[in-house]
Amino acid sequence: MMFLALILSTLTNAQTLLVEKKTFDLPEYRTVSGEIIAPVRVGYETYGTLNEKKSNAILIAHFYSGSSHAAGKYAESDKAPGYWDSIIGPGKALDTNKYFIISSDTLVNIATKNPTVITTGPASINPKTKKPYGMSFPLVGVRDFVNVQHALIQSLGITKLHTVMGASGGAAQAMEWAAAYPDEVERVISVIGPGLSMPPYVIALLNMWSMPIRLDKNWRGGDYYGLDEPTEGVAEAMKFVILSAVHFDWAEKGFGGGAADPAKDPLKAYDNKFAVEKGLSDTGALRGQLVDANSFLYTAKAIQTFNVEDAAKNIKAATLFIPADTDMIFPPEVSYKAMNKLCSLGKHAEAFEIKGRGGHLDGLFQISQADKRIRQFLAGTKSKKCGARTH
Amino acid sequence: MMFLALILSTLTNAQTLLVEKKTFDLPEYRTVSGEIIAPVRVGYETYGTLNEKKSNAILIAHFYSGSSHAAGKYAESDKAPGYWDSIIGPGKALDTNKYFIISSDTLVNIATKNPTVITTGPASINPKTKKPYGMSFPLVGVRDFVNVQHALIQSLGITKLHTVMGASGGAAQAMEWAAAYPDEVERVISVIGPGLSMPPYVIALLNMWSMPIRLDKNWRGGDYYGLDEPTEGVAEAMKFVILSAVHFDWAEKGFGGGAADPAKDPLKAYDNKFAVEKGLSDTGALRGQLVDANSFLYTAKAIQTFNVEDAAKNIKAATLFIPADTDMIFPPEVSYKAMNKLCSLGKHAEAFEIKGRGGHLDGLFQISQADKRIRQFLAGTKSKKCGARTH
Repeated sequence: MMFLALILSTLTNAQTLLVEKKTFDLPEYRTVSGEIIAPVRVGYETYGTLNEKKSNAILIAHFYSGSSHAAGKYAESDKAPGYWDSIIGPGKALDTNKYFIISSDTLVNIATKNPTVITTGPASINPKTKKPYGMSFPLVGVRDFVNVQHALIQSLGITKLHTVMGASGGAAQAMEWAAAYPDEVERVISVIGPGLSMPPYVIALLNMWSMPIRLDKNWRGGDYYGLDEPTEGVAEAMKFVILSAVHFDWAEKGFGGGAADPAKDPLKAYDNKFAVEKGLSDTGALRGQLVDANSFLYTAKAIQTFNVEDAAKNIKAATLFIPADTDMIFPPEVSYKAMNKLCSLGKHAEAFEIKGRGGHLDGLFQISQADKRIRQFLAGTKSKKCGARTH
Repeated sequence: MMFLALILSTLTNAQTLLVEKKTFDLPEYRTVSGEIIAPVRVGYETYGTLNEKKSNAILIAHFYSGSSHAAGKYAESDKAPGYWDSIIGPGKALDTNKYFIISSDTLVNIATKNPTVITTGPASINPKTKKPYGMSFPLVGVRDFVNVQHALIQSLGITKLHTVMGASGGAAQAMEWAAAYPDEVERVISVIGPGLSMPPYVIALLNMWSMPIRLDKNWRGGDYYGLDEPTEGVAEAMKFVILSAVHFDWAEKGFGGGAADPAKDPLKAYDNKFAVEKGLSDTGALRGQLVDANSFLYTAKAIQTFNVEDAAKNIKAATLFIPADTDMIFPPEVSYKAMNKLCSLGKHAEAFEIKGRGGHLDGLFQISQADKRIRQFLAGTKSKKCGARTH
């Protein structure tokens, strides 16, 4: 396993890595709530090479609708590389010539129908019943995501992470890591994250994201496996996620204010739609094809319960917050509130604000704005003042 | 009718008017799309007295989930006055000692089950079938809302409005008035409004607001009258409206991050909820009790189709935009874009920005911040420079 981890991240050219999905197995995992999941399997991928001291490992945790695929391509023919390919690779901010980067799928990942996602959750077969768990799968929180990653890291022989980094729900995991395993995390990079706990507004928003699934008659309280699935509810849930994650420009520049079909005036028939309605519906349906309804509900619940406000006193890591100015899910003030609290607790925290027009998604697509700052932070350079903000 | 209009707005004390709901009937109305609605009835209320020249009339158009009840109380025992009571009344910004204020219910008002709302829409009885129209009711746009108000104004003998004012969807109607009847509108006050057209992002958002109703199995394509109604879908739709209209403080200060029931940890059972989830659900269900599902869909469609970008060249009125800085539905930039366009077309437009933490709803609850500016604007004082912004 170690040997594999060292050689699988193969450099294909100066820009894009060729990467391979790997599997981590745990015979049994006990959740924070005390329930047993057995077995547990999650996927991960690695970029770069672990050094002899095992001191150059950076863990990347993924966001709500994401996966371990943070960089590179699985095959040369892939249309797009992983979501943070602009900052991960040889010579890039997360320089694979220097760092060994591990990116892991979470428990209860929503995209169970994506063949490159490997996860354990409500769509998995319960060995005791030989049927999918459904809503009988134990509820898990962000701390459970982190504990499984911790077991993965241990299996690689790593006892201290140079950095844990993540975007959005991944940022929650990164901060949970620092609070749960303070002696094993040197740095945290929280990109478009929720700070130290899920803001109550976003707890409510996550309730609403899940709502279309619960309302779909095909959801059947989660017992839909082998039957007609709640496809419409999942598609509407994904529309909701997308609409929350973008900003006005996405709609204005992508679709404008016109009809989907110029011959079908939206005011002439209820079902005549605007271009932006059709665009959102098509994207939601497409993204929804890969998503398991129950896993969506489980991920929402896990993210809702993120809260290290009290445990923050244990944090030893230095934290770099990277909010995005037009983010409507976790506006910059959420990061600044957490930063100021960490400073007041005597920890080091600083921030770099991405400027853009892309909303929450600027944390993915505009991350290269923070390229230099990330390089410096990874190299150990901190701002002189705790709580320093730049952009 | 005129006589009634003159005497019904009775002053009860220095602060709060006692007001009466009135009814306006049109035997027949032809929609912009060419369909006939017969008869049409909408409610309205008036505050203050129409002067002899009939030159002091201000029309107020209401927002999505609102009604004509902008000021005063129907009875001394009412818990709360109309939504803009802080600026409407004797001596207030919209001074009922000076102005005659007319506030009208729209066509297809969503709250058909509110006994003080009088509207014509899909829940109305179709005289031809003696059954509710349902989705056979003709689709209407903001221009249709305005045309019915125009007939109401004419019935009162008013040929020119001193001002048309509205919040949110009401601001859309105010701007539509200025574009549709340029010689009959001297001033527009657009509060937390969509500018000159519905931003494509909000067109998509309105699609999502309507989604829970369409997804509810009891909606039955709109044929639910006399059967189990899509109560859950309506409640979820209202939750969505509320969540869009507030901001982080509503959740944080109102509910915080804790469980609804301290004995029921949200991580212990899927149905164990956070306080903010329960709070939002309770409010949505309560508000939803007054709402007709089809009317919600019709209002969403009407608002989606608002667009006077081309007709703006006809506007003669001066416009005061009053955005709210934390508004997530129509952020201030939406107003500024419209203001700049009006200025570039040679019209007069200016802006006052409400500062707050209440999101879109600051246009209702923080309107008194703009008190002085509204007084000046109504008195004919314009900023020297077109496009001037203050706060």
